[in-house]
Amino acid sequence: MDEKVKQALIAIVGERNYTESLLDLVSYSYDASEHTHRPSCGVWPQSTEQVAEILKVANREKIPVIPRGAGTGLSGMAVPVKGGIVLDLNHMNQILEVNIEDRLAVVQPGVVYDDFQNALAPSGFFFPPDPASGQVSTLGGNVATNAGGLKGAKYGTTRDYVLALQVVLPDGRIMKTGSRAMKSVSGYDLTRLFVGSEGTLGVVTEMTFKISPRPTAASTTLATFDDLEDAGHALTEVMHSGIIPSALEILGREAILAINQNTDLELPEVDMMILVETDGYTREEAEYQMAKVIGVFEKNNPREIKRAKTQKEADELWQARKSAYAVLARIKTHFVLEDVTVPMSRITDLLKGIQNIAKEHSLQIATYGHAGDGNLHPQILYDGYDPGQVKRVEAATADLFSLAIELDGTLTGEHGIGISKARFMTLEHDEAEMAVMRGLKRFFDPNNILNPGKMALEE
Amino acid sequence: MDEKVKQALIAIVGERNYTESLLDLVSYSYDASEHTHRPSCGVWPQSTEQVAEILKVANREKIPVIPRGAGTGLSGMAVPVKGGIVLDLNHMNQILEVNIEDRLAVVQPGVVYDDFQNALAPSGFFFPPDPASGQVSTLGGNVATNAGGLKGAKYGTTRDYVLALQVVLPDGRIMKTGSRAMKSVSGYDLTRLFVGSEGTLGVVTEMTFKISPRPTAASTTLATFDDLEDAGHALTEVMHSGIIPSALEILGREAILAINQNTDLELPEVDMMILVETDGYTREEAEYQMAKVIGVFEKNNPREIKRAKTQKEADELWQARKSAYAVLARIKTHFVLEDVTVPMSRITDLLKGIQNIAKEHSLQIATYGHAGDGNLHPQILYDGYDPGQVKRVEAATADLFSLAIELDGTLTGEHGIGISKARFMTLEHDEAEMAVMRGLKRFFDPNNILNPGKMALEE
Repeated sequence: MDEKVKQALIAIVGERNYTESLLDLVSYSYDASEHTHRPSCGVWPQSTEQVAEILKVANREKIPVIPRGAGTGLSGMAVPVKGGIVLDLNHMNQILEVNIEDRLAVVQPGVVYDDFQNALAPSGFFFPPDPASGQVSTLGGNVATNAGGLKGAKYGTTRDYVLALQVVLPDGRIMKTGSRAMKSVSGYDLTRLFVGSEGTLGVVTEMTFKISPRPTAASTTLATFDDLEDAGHALTEVMHSGIIPSALEILGREAILAINQNTDLELPEVDMMILVETDGYTREEAEYQMAKVIGVFEKNNPREIKRAKTQKEADELWQARKSAYAVLARIKTHFVLEDVTVPMSRITDLLKGIQNIAKEHSLQIATYGHAGDGNLHPQILYDGYDPGQVKRVEAATADLFSLAIELDGTLTGEHGIGISKARFMTLEHDEAEMAVMRGLKRFFDPNNILNPGKMALEE
Repeated sequence: MDEKVKQALIAIVGERNYTESLLDLVSYSYDASEHTHRPSCGVWPQSTEQVAEILKVANREKIPVIPRGAGTGLSGMAVPVKGGIVLDLNHMNQILEVNIEDRLAVVQPGVVYDDFQNALAPSGFFFPPDPASGQVSTLGGNVATNAGGLKGAKYGTTRDYVLALQVVLPDGRIMKTGSRAMKSVSGYDLTRLFVGSEGTLGVVTEMTFKISPRPTAASTTLATFDDLEDAGHALTEVMHSGIIPSALEILGREAILAINQNTDLELPEVDMMILVETDGYTREEAEYQMAKVIGVFEKNNPREIKRAKTQKEADELWQARKSAYAVLARIKTHFVLEDVTVPMSRITDLLKGIQNIAKEHSLQIATYGHAGDGNLHPQILYDGYDPGQVKRVEAATADLFSLAIELDGTLTGEHGIGISKARFMTLEHDEAEMAVMRGLKRFFDPNNILNPGKMALEE
């Protein structure tokens, strides 16, 4: 880092909150994606005012700034692909307020998701978005990526729970958006423009979240299907049953086989496993909804329908589903985890298409995900040291994105665009929409200092 | 209207879909607010392409275009305050698709809210936002204003149910935003930037909504309180009860008295009536939640708690609440209906403050509203032919807005800014936020043709 800039940054955050150490810079060079690039330095701001001062320096000197939480993103949005300053927000990790009367909480971006849930638990409240990375990911990252999770179909995503933000704009101005009131239509909805903007428009330094009373009853059932078509019909018909499950998860055959080869879970080796949860405040409510779902399953030739009789049984079923990512990640040296999302009626088409893509490119693709909102996770397992495989993976992901768009879906349901999907943006978004997104980026960040090189915003 | 422009518009929409008739222009000169200004002409476009051509002409000639639905807005957003072309979208009123499998519906902007609900009803699905104007207001207007309603606390507002939009930009480009998938984080959230933008950024010509299975059980209870403090505590404590009512409505003393003087409903003349609904898919779920709410009420010195035993009794209670607006509107020659919104713990402070403002300015202010999300409707009744009263109403509304902001609230929970609240925008929004909103308006609409003169966007 240029000495003058370095001294300016140290003057803001102090010597101990500035780093150029190789260990830190290597850590900051990657996230949970396959991308990597080293920054020039890292800083740990302690306050919104420090963030503002850092951005003023960076904007004056036209140096990239990459806001960073836990680095669990799967699309490269935290990778400093053009170098610059990593703005590590992990020191701003205070829960500033939990206010049950007002049904809200105010937090800093560095708060870890699970710590927040644990802080809410004694009051019987919870924060409904539920990213699978919650043990480590930070709420700032959740907001920057509009994090989803298993329960999106019933409870929505992060976007639906952000009431207000404090944002530092690229030129260092501090701005508030939204309101502490549950409802507001005062002016443009700037709050949601920042949610999911992947750190490219401003740095969020304080977040006011809506929180909800946690349901106190739940019911879990596992159904297995020998035939993909039957399973697909079952999923579609659940939508006709008059209820929305709190979770409707699937594991495809490839995922099941891989889990069985690498664990002692002994899952049934079928075309598809469906795991359902219904919830409510009373046992009757959860069971009524589950009966509706089971009724649908029974009409579609299931091999087995297994209702969890105890919480322990339910936990074991969810354990199998939740183990998928980690088990699959260990099988080969490398993997890419996608999150294409389609309208629910197209899930079978998507699953079949994925099988074809796997065959065509001779790749192992294990698929699981959130069928309740059409959000599937094809995980492509490969040997990243084999250039031939790397090339085939690239071709397969391109085919996968084209397939999702053909099926009226989207490139990404919850992982974001980042670097990984940037070159596919024009598949999904028309010319006018791309022009508007790029124009917005230029409007907010004319010097392109905030997280540059992401989301195809620079063409 | 300039002859050349007139002929250009007729060439697009046809002679019969262009009007300069006095009757039409007078109709188009007002909405449900107290504001009024006559346009030069009106057009009824039949398609997105026609809207695009109209905007191209207007943009070239720098003529204002005011998109209009049913004109039920209460803040003047449909009033052509700078003249120009009223773009009446009522002919674009087709429900293009209802797709239960995919849990979505695609509609044109001119569809009347109730017609849409009626179309969904046979499938057991519904569109959760519930503006009180639903019998007449159009879905395009609901999106332009981010319409709320009685059930916002549990079900959210229009914003939460918009998946995708087709928008015509001021220069005539046609743009799609969002996705038919339930979840998408592909690029910036342009969809929600248009929701609530009051027709100032683009013209929405097609909307894809998320729909939900309708709850099949409900429970209704009326509670009355002689003391405002007790009622305020009861409302706040409901938030601690571990459930969210599907409606939590209040009527203040002034509103009750006015209703009694003008109907034969014979409501109890107390400081506050609270009307609660809980819902679910089973009777047990609705009753469990109602028991929680009643438990809270019982601890706070109610005069009476009356549970509706039949659907007819419940309907009668809701009838009283829903009659408030119309009954109050008839009492004096004029009224202003506000919708200030505060965090739930500040509702008592707001109610007391409103009483003080009424006393100070010698005005009759009747208050009712959605306590579940802190959204109150103080309705100021006055004689608009008395300049002294008009002046006092202006002073009282200014005081009301200052009060809401002091209480950490917002100028408007669901009615929007329009003309009525434009000059109060800077009370709520800081300098940076105002600059960003104004910059966004200039970015989208550099010639300021779309609904000019609204939302304080021009300073």
